[in-house]
Amino acid sequence: MGKMPGDMFEVAELGRKVSRQEFDQAVPALRSELLQAQFALKSRKFPVIIIVSGADCAGKGEVVHRLNEWLDPRGVDTFAFWQSSDEEQARPPFWRFWRALPARGRIGIFFGSWYSDPMVRRVYRKIKGSQLDGALDRIAFFEKMLADDGALIIKLWLHLSRKEQARRLQHLQRDPHTRGRVRPADLKNLKLYERFVRTSERAIRRTDSAQCPWHLIEATDRHYCELAAGRILLQSLQARLQDDGAGKVQAAAAEPPARPARAKSSQTVLDHLDLSQKLTDRRYRGELEKYQGRLTRLTWEANARKISTVAVLEGWDAAGKGSAIRRVTAAIDPRLYRIIPIAAPTDEERAHHYFWRFWRHLPQAGYVTIFDRSWYGRVLVERVEKFASENEWKRAYLEINDFEEQLADRDIALAKFWIHISKEEQLRRFQERQDIQFKRYKITGEDWRNRKKWDAYKEAINEMVARTSTEFAPWTVVAGNDKNFARVQILKTLCDALERLL
Amino acid sequence: MGKMPGDMFEVAELGRKVSRQEFDQAVPALRSELLQAQFALKSRKFPVIIIVSGADCAGKGEVVHRLNEWLDPRGVDTFAFWQSSDEEQARPPFWRFWRALPARGRIGIFFGSWYSDPMVRRVYRKIKGSQLDGALDRIAFFEKMLADDGALIIKLWLHLSRKEQARRLQHLQRDPHTRGRVRPADLKNLKLYERFVRTSERAIRRTDSAQCPWHLIEATDRHYCELAAGRILLQSLQARLQDDGAGKVQAAAAEPPARPARAKSSQTVLDHLDLSQKLTDRRYRGELEKYQGRLTRLTWEANARKISTVAVLEGWDAAGKGSAIRRVTAAIDPRLYRIIPIAAPTDEERAHHYFWRFWRHLPQAGYVTIFDRSWYGRVLVERVEKFASENEWKRAYLEINDFEEQLADRDIALAKFWIHISKEEQLRRFQERQDIQFKRYKITGEDWRNRKKWDAYKEAINEMVARTSTEFAPWTVVAGNDKNFARVQILKTLCDALERLL
Repeated sequence: MGKMPGDMFEVAELGRKVSRQEFDQAVPALRSELLQAQFALKSRKFPVIIIVSGADCAGKGEVVHRLNEWLDPRGVDTFAFWQSSDEEQARPPFWRFWRALPARGRIGIFFGSWYSDPMVRRVYRKIKGSQLDGALDRIAFFEKMLADDGALIIKLWLHLSRKEQARRLQHLQRDPHTRGRVRPADLKNLKLYERFVRTSERAIRRTDSAQCPWHLIEATDRHYCELAAGRILLQSLQARLQDDGAGKVQAAAAEPPARPARAKSSQTVLDHLDLSQKLTDRRYRGELEKYQGRLTRLTWEANARKISTVAVLEGWDAAGKGSAIRRVTAAIDPRLYRIIPIAAPTDEERAHHYFWRFWRHLPQAGYVTIFDRSWYGRVLVERVEKFASENEWKRAYLEINDFEEQLADRDIALAKFWIHISKEEQLRRFQERQDIQFKRYKITGEDWRNRKKWDAYKEAINEMVARTSTEFAPWTVVAGNDKNFARVQILKTLCDALERLL
Repeated sequence: MGKMPGDMFEVAELGRKVSRQEFDQAVPALRSELLQAQFALKSRKFPVIIIVSGADCAGKGEVVHRLNEWLDPRGVDTFAFWQSSDEEQARPPFWRFWRALPARGRIGIFFGSWYSDPMVRRVYRKIKGSQLDGALDRIAFFEKMLADDGALIIKLWLHLSRKEQARRLQHLQRDPHTRGRVRPADLKNLKLYERFVRTSERAIRRTDSAQCPWHLIEATDRHYCELAAGRILLQSLQARLQDDGAGKVQAAAAEPPARPARAKSSQTVLDHLDLSQKLTDRRYRGELEKYQGRLTRLTWEANARKISTVAVLEGWDAAGKGSAIRRVTAAIDPRLYRIIPIAAPTDEERAHHYFWRFWRHLPQAGYVTIFDRSWYGRVLVERVEKFASENEWKRAYLEINDFEEQLADRDIALAKFWIHISKEEQLRRFQERQDIQFKRYKITGEDWRNRKKWDAYKEAINEMVARTSTEFAPWTVVAGNDKNFARVQILKTLCDALERLL
């Protein structure tokens, strides 16, 4: 949107108009070009997100209708975020948006969006200005994350003057057919017009960027407004389609993560860990029973109080993730937990942003989800094996921290475990697995190949722990050479994490 | 389960026991074999469904725990159907089960299942015996459908004598740690023990089949019960794994559809249709406005009253499905509808039963879903192009009728349209599309190839209409040579379908 005048919306009160005749003349060519662009999009495989926002009565619904009419509806999904289901309310607020994001090659029209809720709450003084700013910063980060991944985000703001808004409401109220559509809130909003304008300005300013710019449209004349929306969409699509490999270029230009990496040194988190820690079988049995009992009670209590738990299990091959998970689930009622094993993504998952597959598995309030491997794959296996570009895994640290902060904000107990074993212990376990018949299936050529990259993995793990150990989501590096010790530490840490929230 | 004695459950009150020692000795071998079978399952790609049902306090939760402990939890999903979300309540009852069905190569443990709700309702006399039978027949059909598709279904019934059930409840109540787990309903159920047993017998008898047999397990001794459950699972898995190509054999043996095909004749539904029906542009504009206005009002009213609409659009290539859909959606608020275009399935969809992908898109109560092509692909393109085996598409008629009946039962307005055009009209439109630049993308080599199979498609369409026009879901065959006429007929039929339910 470039530079803003003192009153941002002045430029949208110039009285621009398009006659019915001009409109009818312009539409066929616009439509034809839109369809061609949409067709080209199918093979170019990036998602398009159109946000239609603006004042009450500005004709947002009409613009959504027009876009649906002009585009091939088979490639378009329209989402309105006006009511939320209990499944949505039971998860962090962005879950419903992740659920609705279009796949690559498709267009999502968002009628209402992530902007609505914080803005309405600010207008009604439910949150402070600083809280609004926090919410807007999260939105800007979210949009940047999608854009970095290749999404084209087109944000339309439909502006109406106060006078015009009042006129339209009166008009709706007079007509018996439309009277029912005027909600009491609409009349109240009109009184708050000035406040609404100020909040809108703040939102637009704070989230306007070269990557995801706002487009301000004067909405007084419907023909002008609809035509402008169609043209902005067309220009944005065409610019992006011509700009071959734009996604790559943008990604390369993304700034490096804000938090400085720790100075490299031979001394790392993993090196400091005392791998000789042990528990005798006798003490193990006692501790196991104690913490399993505690976990049983805590998970039931958390269920009653709608507190969720997310446990992330990461570790070297043969570190004992599977058997540790078994000790955890043995303590939880099967109705309360789900295990999500993370392997290669499905093609539906591949058609979305990397994080989409994790959002879709978030537990409803009160339940436990155990991720057997997780989003950390991005900065571990995908980094080491070069499945992700350097830029992708580097920016993932910030994306991960933001994701986990959203879980913490929703009072989800989050515990992350890296089960560490020595290189010698891994070798011993690999050999044991090959010798025991019913364990043989657990060892594959890939395990041996990964082992050869021990040092590259070690560097990745150290950087991961350093960059994603946050106040709200600390890592627990577990000494795993002794399985007894590791299992009890995991159980105990989980109990502590839950207890802090209860 | 084979023959039942007079009192079915007598065989499960024989006092069978397994000592702790025997149990500990038997488990390692059983586990090893279970893991091997589970590993083999991964490459054999059929889904396994384990239903754990039975009396209160019979230890269902413990059996679920054990199976999770013995199996590799990464390949197992456990689902408990104890609470339902509002998204589940807003759809036909089987939606939540379809949502939970395991993909091929995975094991789903169902703690509670489709049996619970009708049985509990019968025990509490909320439904009549005949209604219970109806629900059980639907269940039997559902299980058969999954089994025909290759699923291995293992149904466990854990039986407790009345005496033992009473003893366990008292025991739970005495212990302060477990007292909270005894719900008032449990005590009430105990009083209804006889009724519960009779209802269980009825359910088991009516849904016991060679393909999906029940396994009755005496649950008095926990070790015996858990070991029996593990062994039944192992035997069923092994039998199925050895029986190479079992899915195919079963499918071939499936009985032909119950409803007799209509006698073939040269006179068919399509031939009887008067394709010369027309609307002048002037009358079209009037009718369009009239029915679009009606549809706007009806969809809002349906939303308020939580009545959903499912519209299915099928038709020849170039019959005008897309433009007809546009006339429908123009009349509906974008918040209220979704268009689901059906093309090739994703790999997640391919890993489930054919119908899974349609269940996942069912609208919440009060909303409109428009399927642009649909489940009828099974008996049209998949039949003609031989993507589906003869057995698969033949049994699909019954599956479709059952699916649509479930929609009707949930008060979902269902309207199915076949837009018919003559072969000459299709040719004219193909040529037109090639001539107009912005329509060119709509025509592909596939369209020309399909056209060559006109007669095969015609036969399939006629059989489809004959076999799936039901009282609750009649087909509307639309005369499509005149687009004006077709669009108005579709709008009018949709309005009528909704009006009948309002």
